[in-house]
Amino acid sequence: MSVNSFGRLLRLTTWGESHGPAIGAVVDGCPPGLALSAADIQPFLDARRPGADPLASPRKEPDRVRILSGVFEGRTTGTPISLMIDNVDARPADYPADAPPRAGHADAAYDVKYGVRDPRGGGRASARETAARVAAGAIARLVIPGVTIAARVIEIGGESDEARWTAMIEAAREAGESLGGVIEGVATGVPAGWGAPIYAKLDAELAAALMSINAVKGVEIGAGFAAARAKGSDNADPAMTGGVTGGIATGDPIVVRAAFKPPSSVPALGVTGRHDPCVVVRAVPIVEAMLALVLADHRLLHRAQCG
Amino acid sequence: MSVNSFGRLLRLTTWGESHGPAIGAVVDGCPPGLALSAADIQPFLDARRPGADPLASPRKEPDRVRILSGVFEGRTTGTPISLMIDNVDARPADYPADAPPRAGHADAAYDVKYGVRDPRGGGRASARETAARVAAGAIARLVIPGVTIAARVIEIGGESDEARWTAMIEAAREAGESLGGVIEGVATGVPAGWGAPIYAKLDAELAAALMSINAVKGVEIGAGFAAARAKGSDNADPAMTGGVTGGIATGDPIVVRAAFKPPSSVPALGVTGRHDPCVVVRAVPIVEAMLALVLADHRLLHRAQCG
Amino acid sequence: MSVNSFGRLLRLTTWGESHGPAIGAVVDGCPPGLALSAADIQPFLDARRPGADPLASPRKEPDRVRILSGVFEGRTTGTPISLMIDNVDARPADYPADAPPRAGHADAAYDVKYGVRDPRGGGRASARETAARVAAGAIARLVIPGVTIAARVIEIGGESDEARWTAMIEAAREAGESLGGVIEGVATGVPAGWGAPIYAKLDAELAAALMSINAVKGVEIGAGFAAARAKGSDNADPAMTGGVTGGIATGDPIVVRAAFKPPSSVPALGVTGRHDPCVVVRAVPIVEAMLALVLADHRLLHRAQCG
Amino acid sequence: MSVNSFGRLLRLTTWGESHGPAIGAVVDGCPPGLALSAADIQPFLDARRPGADPLASPRKEPDRVRILSGVFEGRTTGTPISLMIDNVDARPADYPADAPPRAGHADAAYDVKYGVRDPRGGGRASARETAARVAAGAIARLVIPGVTIAARVIEIGGESDEARWTAMIEAAREAGESLGGVIEGVATGVPAGWGAPIYAKLDAELAAALMSINAVKGVEIGAGFAAARAKGSDNADPAMTGGVTGGIATGDPIVVRAAFKPPSSVPALGVTGRHDPCVVVRAVPIVEAMLALVLADHRLLHRAQCG
Repeated sequence: MSVNSFGRLLRLTTWGESHGPAIGAVVDGCPPGLALSAADIQPFLDARRPGADPLASPRKEPDRVRILSGVFEGRTTGTPISLMIDNVDARPADYPADAPPRAGHADAAYDVKYGVRDPRGGGRASARETAARVAAGAIARLVIPGVTIAARVIEIGGESDEARWTAMIEAAREAGESLGGVIEGVATGVPAGWGAPIYAKLDAELAAALMSINAVKGVEIGAGFAAARAKGSDNADPAMTGGVTGGIATGDPIVVRAAFKPPSSVPALGVTGRHDPCVVVRAVPIVEAMLALVLADHRLLHRAQCG
Repeated sequence: MSVNSFGRLLRLTTWGESHGPAIGAVVDGCPPGLALSAADIQPFLDARRPGADPLASPRKEPDRVRILSGVFEGRTTGTPISLMIDNVDARPADYPADAPPRAGHADAAYDVKYGVRDPRGGGRASARETAARVAAGAIARLVIPGVTIAARVIEIGGESDEARWTAMIEAAREAGESLGGVIEGVATGVPAGWGAPIYAKLDAELAAALMSINAVKGVEIGAGFAAARAKGSDNADPAMTGGVTGGIATGDPIVVRAAFKPPSSVPALGVTGRHDPCVVVRAVPIVEAMLALVLADHRLLHRAQCG
Repeated sequence: MSVNSFGRLLRLTTWGESHGPAIGAVVDGCPPGLALSAADIQPFLDARRPGADPLASPRKEPDRVRILSGVFEGRTTGTPISLMIDNVDARPADYPADAPPRAGHADAAYDVKYGVRDPRGGGRASARETAARVAAGAIARLVIPGVTIAARVIEIGGESDEARWTAMIEAAREAGESLGGVIEGVATGVPAGWGAPIYAKLDAELAAALMSINAVKGVEIGAGFAAARAKGSDNADPAMTGGVTGGIATGDPIVVRAAFKPPSSVPALGVTGRHDPCVVVRAVPIVEAMLALVLADHRLLHRAQCG
Repeated sequence: MSVNSFGRLLRLTTWGESHGPAIGAVVDGCPPGLALSAADIQPFLDARRPGADPLASPRKEPDRVRILSGVFEGRTTGTPISLMIDNVDARPADYPADAPPRAGHADAAYDVKYGVRDPRGGGRASARETAARVAAGAIARLVIPGVTIAARVIEIGGESDEARWTAMIEAAREAGESLGGVIEGVATGVPAGWGAPIYAKLDAELAAALMSINAVKGVEIGAGFAAARAKGSDNADPAMTGGVTGGIATGDPIVVRAAFKPPSSVPALGVTGRHDPCVVVRAVPIVEAMLALVLADHRLLHRAQCG
């Protein structure tokens, strides 16, 4: 029920605001005996860091993860794994408490829902929460050995030619603008039979997982919206289904895509503060993390019912 | 946790196979005191019937819903509402127990997952399960007075000109083919503040709800995939977000779209039995039902936390 | 979240009022491939019947269970199992809609909570709901082969000498009174390791399961309240823990007890209608069903996390 | 589903081992706008401290709680509240990794379940986890203004005369023994109507909450086991039901009791390390916390369905 939790059996709960003392995650339900240390998690966080992308926001937090529980002598114990990342670069003074909601942000939505809001850098609505997802996703990968998850940007600003992206992003920055894009994630090695029918369909849960990422406005599996223009006989091509039929994995690669809108914190809309002209590249590890979390959860769910 | 349940506080559980004695739904958590009788539900089921669409499958089940519990003297009592629809047109003999899995269907996926399967007309994987959703959706609408939900087909076979659809579908039928399409759903009157952040985002749950419908391969909110080609300054247009920011309703109309692939049970793929060349029209009440279920659940969730 | 559901992975949802057309249960998450027919369930319902106990209430419903889904050719398919029992002996006319709440019943509580109530024979609050539990419990037993569950009355009206119970009950009936008692349930063959720590402790969930039975006012595991009077060194006796330590099964027999208060529908309190002077005997299969449901759920939960 | 989480709408997740760097809790679903600071929590932790009881274990951790998220300028924001307590007195060296399981402890149960275990001071199974409950319970109290929760020891070692307890405990310490006891908790001011029927009965959830506390072996509501010896006409006394009928609060004080077995870490059983001859006194704030958590959750659940 918790709105800050994700998953049934491998269950992630995240907490923390952008400019509070720290953010964190609790991963419950992890099988015992898995080799795990902070070194298994850190590379994924490093890939997500703004600093990893020379064109992105100048925030330079190191995002150093600590494991506070659930691991003993390098092995998971089956108890909750608490992960914490200090907000060492928090600059609350940059964000006065009486700052008005920023256009296109969730600020106003939080105001009307809760009547109160941590205004510092987006607070809980900040993309910073996704660091906790990425950390948890690294654990989820350990739960699904044999499954390979890889995501990549396939389109920025409507352009699929990778060679043009750097110039486009630089132009957007200079224009006080920003760009969106599309990420494709592929999971190979998922055994046929994982997944579930009806409301826990593997594709339905992947859709929720991706749509829960800030800025995502569309989600596809397999042929996606192109399927709406296909003919019935095109179903003979496994690419149509994207590796899932009836909510259950077929054993083929699972292929999903997520469409990211451009950030709304742009000078063109009068927004001051940090300006990321394109966040799509940084979202790649987040997409991978969400895929890993869904698949790990379904591995456990399948094992529970079907042995 | 139940894979055949949907929702947190207004919670739907469905059961039944296509050619068993009946299908049904249990709706738990409904507020007490709402006026409810079968007559409030039946029109939505009638709209979903194959018979309602002269071009669709000839199955003629009347889909007569009965309310078995949870209502006393025309009012909901707050206890579980059990709905049942007899499968009066079930023809199990049409589907021998040793029938091979049909191409493009979930048959093979169920076989590999469960090792056993009710093969009659798709069994649990049949679109017949959606009648239970539609019935439950009618109850969900009662939980959200003031909210108007309307869906419509906006594209069939890649064509958005409605005048051409009949001829296209007829041509597909004659060719032993089938067509997909796109449905757009709009919810107006949703109060700003409904929804939730992070993993229970309103748009994430709408995405799961729509992707859980058989044949849906893509889901969008607001600008959807077009948002990936927009500029940051386009965020000034509320159509970009589709009525949800940060997972929370803004008070603007909520606009979602779902892409349906064409049915795979087509003569062109050697499949015998009932042949629906286009199921998109029949899916309109299902899309509406899923919207209503998500919104009703979030109304209760919002009231729980924020009063 | 559903208040009418029980269990995580083997999940029971019940519905129905005492004098509506039927009551029922949906069991989701059952492993596929188990041999199951109505004949596996019926004996447990028969044991619970009032008619099975010559001293009990004269209601004579046959409680004939039907399986409406989830089973194909005598095997579970992994999809929801819908069970239905018609209320053939329903006599709504016995219970006028304007009947005042009965002393000691849940009637008044329902009134104040929901503002509306099905007054016929206790409606949803009737012990009739437990027939659905008993039916589901029969399925749960199939999920835990190797585990033997047996409950028995160990005390009626404070008297543990079984030979005196018949006379005591008869005397209570004549006096317009009623008696309570204690049931002990024992599960043997539960593998060490089932269960879970902290909030899903096996004993905590057994306690909830038993306390959720109408009229239960106390629950014990192992030494129970006597443990509060024991010395630390008494922990060397495995009977102290009752087969569970830290929420996890030890492999020893699991021993629980539930205390039932006497029914409040007694002529001595001016209540008319059916009068059961002692319901404890009929509650034995309910206690067994709840034990089976908890253990089956924990078997699946353990398998999910620990393989 | 998470076994380390508690509650539906006000949802607590705890983490941490006795001798890891810290323990903590995440409280999700808290209504926004409540005044909250660490000073609201600290007194309850102080009451639970060993140091607060001169006869108890010499562990002297200050249990200083920090709020890491979910509060802005002294008000809850509706986002997850992360609480952390450093284990400043952790002495892992006292507990060698190859220490054998201690008699009567959960050590062996964890070993067989998970195949791996943090052996230091009971690890996750340590009563230290209850500090996180107590901290969360302080927040739960804020959610139920108007409700007063008070627990007290009513029996130690079978003796209800408070004046004799100190001498008894001292004698037990000298004998290398330990004593159990009974705690009674009373909640007054709970509005009639809170609670829920069937499986979410208020008394069933209180029973699970109390039985989930380490060492609890029995739970009662109202007359408890004495009810099994009462007559039907005794139901006219509201003390019989303990403030709950049909799972729903009546508006009368809610009265529950929990029986604690004596600690098994006693020299008499050859266990070395810290020796608490009686932990019942320290458990009082834990009982109160669990009551507050259940009631706060049910307040939100009631508001969700019934407004």
